Amino acid sequence: MITSALFTDFYELTMAQGYWKQNMNQEVVFDMFFRRQPFNGGFSVFAGIETLLDVLTEFSFSADDIAYLKEQGIFEQGFLDYLKDFRFTGDLYSFEEGSLIFPQEPIIRIHANLIEAQILEGLVLNHCNFQSLIATKTARVWLASKKGSIMEFGLRRAQGPDGAMSATRAAYIGGAAGTSNTLAGKRFGIPVMGTMAHSWIMSFPSELEAFEAYAKIYPEKTVFLIDTYDTLGSGIKNAIKAGAKLVEQGYNFGVRLDSGDIAYLSAEVRKELDKAGFPQAFISVSNELTEEIIETLIQQNAPIASWGVGTHMVTGGTESSFTGVYKLAARHDAKTDTMIPAMKFSDNPAKNTNPGIKNVYRLYDENGMAKADILALTTQSIEPGKEYRYHHPMVDYRQFTFKAASVKEMLKLRLKNGKRTEERLDDKTQLAKSRETLRAQLETLDASYKRIINPHIYKVSLTEELKDLKVEFIKKNIK
Amino acid sequence: MITSALFTDFYELTMAQGYWKQNMNQEVVFDMFFRRQPFNGGFSVFAGIETLLDVLTEFSFSADDIAYLKEQGIFEQGFLDYLKDFRFTGDLYSFEEGSLIFPQEPIIRIHANLIEAQILEGLVLNHCNFQSLIATKTARVWLASKKGSIMEFGLRRAQGPDGAMSATRAAYIGGAAGTSNTLAGKRFGIPVMGTMAHSWIMSFPSELEAFEAYAKIYPEKTVFLIDTYDTLGSGIKNAIKAGAKLVEQGYNFGVRLDSGDIAYLSAEVRKELDKAGFPQAFISVSNELTEEIIETLIQQNAPIASWGVGTHMVTGGTESSFTGVYKLAARHDAKTDTMIPAMKFSDNPAKNTNPGIKNVYRLYDENGMAKADILALTTQSIEPGKEYRYHHPMVDYRQFTFKAASVKEMLKLRLKNGKRTEERLDDKTQLAKSRETLRAQLETLDASYKRIINPHIYKVSLTEELKDLKVEFIKKNIK
Repeated sequence: MITSALFTDFYELTMAQGYWKQNMNQEVVFDMFFRRQPFNGGFSVFAGIETLLDVLTEFSFSADDIAYLKEQGIFEQGFLDYLKDFRFTGDLYSFEEGSLIFPQEPIIRIHANLIEAQILEGLVLNHCNFQSLIATKTARVWLASKKGSIMEFGLRRAQGPDGAMSATRAAYIGGAAGTSNTLAGKRFGIPVMGTMAHSWIMSFPSELEAFEAYAKIYPEKTVFLIDTYDTLGSGIKNAIKAGAKLVEQGYNFGVRLDSGDIAYLSAEVRKELDKAGFPQAFISVSNELTEEIIETLIQQNAPIASWGVGTHMVTGGTESSFTGVYKLAARHDAKTDTMIPAMKFSDNPAKNTNPGIKNVYRLYDENGMAKADILALTTQSIEPGKEYRYHHPMVDYRQFTFKAASVKEMLKLRLKNGKRTEERLDDKTQLAKSRETLRAQLETLDASYKRIINPHIYKVSLTEELKDLKVEFIKKNIK
Repeated sequence: MITSALFTDFYELTMAQGYWKQNMNQEVVFDMFFRRQPFNGGFSVFAGIETLLDVLTEFSFSADDIAYLKEQGIFEQGFLDYLKDFRFTGDLYSFEEGSLIFPQEPIIRIHANLIEAQILEGLVLNHCNFQSLIATKTARVWLASKKGSIMEFGLRRAQGPDGAMSATRAAYIGGAAGTSNTLAGKRFGIPVMGTMAHSWIMSFPSELEAFEAYAKIYPEKTVFLIDTYDTLGSGIKNAIKAGAKLVEQGYNFGVRLDSGDIAYLSAEVRKELDKAGFPQAFISVSNELTEEIIETLIQQNAPIASWGVGTHMVTGGTESSFTGVYKLAARHDAKTDTMIPAMKFSDNPAKNTNPGIKNVYRLYDENGMAKADILALTTQSIEPGKEYRYHHPMVDYRQFTFKAASVKEMLKLRLKNGKRTEERLDDKTQLAKSRETLRAQLETLDASYKRIINPHIYKVSLTEELKDLKVEFIKKNIK
C-alpha cells in the first residue's frame, strides 16, 4: 500500500503552496463523479473506496519526501514545514462499495480545507477509477455467463503488480468465484483456483503420462488441459483414459479448452465425454474471453461449466480506464461566511459540472425496483409517497414527475475529521459485504439496464432547485 | 516492490508440488516472447526487465506465506519445507531494456530447474508485459509528436497505484520528457511537471485573479489553463493580461488547452498571442490525446509546443495488455543426458512455438540499418559478411538470403545462478541508459516500420537448422 502523500500530481503541490501563501485554505467541497458508462454498458459498480479509506487515514509526507520536494527548488521552508504535519482531517461521504453507480452523480463527496482536498485528487481517482472499472467489467462477464462460475486468471496480463492485486480484489466484488493470484488470495481471503499449464504436459514424455501423474496427485481437483497437442485427436482421448481411472476410484474430473473454436470444440468434447459414459465430467474454458464472447457461447448452449477469464477482465480490455473526475462543487466565502456553489464550464456542455453540495437519492417503485437516481442539494429532502418533478441534467425540456414508494440516500459519512466513522472490517468480511451489496442492488435493476449490448439508459436527474441553481449559473456566465 | 513468491498463479504451485513428488526437477529452458505488435504498430519496446531482476534476486516465501499454503490443505509438509528455502538460482538471458522487439523472438530466455522456472512465469510476464506495453505506446506518441515534449499525466487514470508507478517508469523509457507523478519522480529520478487545475481557477473570485496569483508565485513556470469558463471568450484574454505583466518582468509564459477542438482553438489562441505581441508565449495541450490525434494535429501544423498525455499512454488505451507468453523450449532428458527441444502445438498454427534453445541475431546492412531479426539455435552462429538462407517462421515457401554487414547478438546473460552478472545501476542511471538504448535503436530502423498507421512488417526469420527442427517436430506430431 502506497501511503506516501507524494503519490499525487505535482501541480497539486504547486497549487497547494499557492493556496498556503495566499492564506486560502478555506473549506471546500469536491465531488468525484464519472461521465459515461464504460463498455457501452447500462451500469457501473463502485469499488476501491475501502482501500482508499485505508490510505487516507494513513498517508503523510516522510522526511525523505520533504527533502525531495526541497530539492525541486520552488517550495518555501514554511510550506514544507506545513507538509511535515500534513494529514487528511476532512469528512468523506461515499456510496457503499459494490453499489451500482451512474454518470453525473457524486459517488464520493469530500469536505475539507482546500489544500487537503486538492492534494488527494490523484489518490481518490487512482483507487476508485481502476477498481470500479474492473468490478464493472467483471459484473458484465458474470451476468453474461448467467451468473456462472468465473475464475479470474489475469495476473500475467495485468498492469503491473498492483494492477494484478487490485484487479483481483475488484473482480471478486464484481462476481468472480475465485482467482489464480495466490498472493491476492492470501491478502484478501479470496478462493484460489487453477489446473495445469501446457508446460506440465510438455514436461512429460507423453500427454497421457502427464494426465495420469496429475490425477494421482490431485484426484479431487483434476481438470485436464486438452489442447497442448491436438484437442480432439489426442487431448480428449487421453483425458477420458486418465479420467476413467479417477471415476473408478470414486472421483470426478473436468477438461479445459484454451484455444480453437470454443463453441465447436466444447460440443464435440461433450459428445465424447457422454459417449464414454461420463456425463458428470465438466468442461471449463479460457482464452481471451470477453462478456460478448461468453454471451454468444451461452446463446449457442455451449456445454460449459466454468470460465477462466484473464486479460480483458483485469485490464478492462478495449476500455482500460474509467472516466471518473474530481471537481470543486462549493467553497467557503469569507465575506458572507457561507458555502457558495462552484461550477466548471466547458466548450463541451457535457463537461459542465453540477454546482453545490449534493446528495444522491435512489427512488424505487412499489415493487422495490430502482427507477431513477436524483441529485438534490443537501438542504432538500426527498420523501417517499410524495410526487416531485425531476429534470434532465443537461436538456431542460426533458423532465418527469414521480412518486417513489421508497427512497434511499446513497451517500454515507465514512470519514469524520479524517477518521473512520465505523470500525474497519477485515478484508475478507469487507469483500463479502461489498460483493453482497452488488448482488442485492442488481436484483433491484430491471433487466433492460443489464443487457450486455445496447442497454436501456437509467435516469439520473436533478431536483427542480438544483436545476434552477445550475441554469442561473450558466445564464450568469454565458453572455 | 512485491517480493513474495506467492505472487504467482496457484497452478504453478500445484504443478510444482507435482514435479517435486515425481522427482522431475530437471533443467529446463523457457522463452518469453510475444505474438503480435500492439496498436497495429511496426515495433515494440522492451521494458520492465530491470524491475524484474530486482524481484528475482529477492523473492521468496515468508513463514506467513508457507502457513497460508498449508491452510489450503493440499500441500505436503516436505514440499512446504522445500519452499522455505526456495530462491531463484537459474540463469536469465534477455534483450537490453529499451530494445526494439518483434513477435516470435525470445526476449527473455531462462535456464533453471523446472520448479523455479515454473513458479516465476506470472512474475516475468506481469513485469515485462505491462512495462513493454507502455514504453511502446509512449514511443509511438513521441514519434507522432515528431520527438516533441511529452508530459506523462496519467496517475489518476492508471490501473492502481503500481499501474501508475510502473507506467511512469516505462513512459520515460519510451520518450516522455517528464511526469506529473511526484512519487515516481522521486523514486526513479524523472523530472516532475505540472501547471494548474480548474479547481485553482474556481477557488478564486475571478479567472484573472487566479492567473495573477499563480504568476506571482511561479513567474518562471507559469502556464495558464484557459478553458475553465470560456477559452476564447475569457481564458486567452485573461492569460494575455496576466502574461503581459510577466513579460514586463522579463519572464515568458504559456497557456494550456484541456478541452474543445484543439486544432481550431490552438490556431485561434496562437493568433491572439501573436496579435498581443507575445510570439514567444507557448501553447500546451491535453485531453485524451493519442498518437493518432497528435499525428493529425502535427499534420495540420497546429502551433503546439508540448503535449500532456495521460489515460491512453499509461493504460495502452484500446489495447490494455501486451501478448507476451512464457513457453517451454527445451528440457533435460535423463536417458540421454542432453537438453532436448520441446514444442507446443495448437489448433491455431500461429500458436505453435519455436522449439530448442535459441539466440536472436539482428542483421544490419552496410548503412547500419536493421534488416531482419534471426532466430538461431545456440549451437549455431551467424557471421557478418557471410550469406545465409533464412525462413519465415510459419510459411515455408517464404525465404530470403542475406549477407549482413554487421550482426548483433540480442540476448545477454543478466543473471548467473540467480545473481546479477553486472552491478545494479541506480534507478536514474538505468533509466537514462534504457532510454538511450531505445533512441539509438530507433535510428537504425527504417521510417516505414515506424509509421503510426499501417507500418511495414519487419522480418523475423529462422535459420535453416531451426526451421528443419520445427518442421520435423510438426511432421512427427501431425498424423
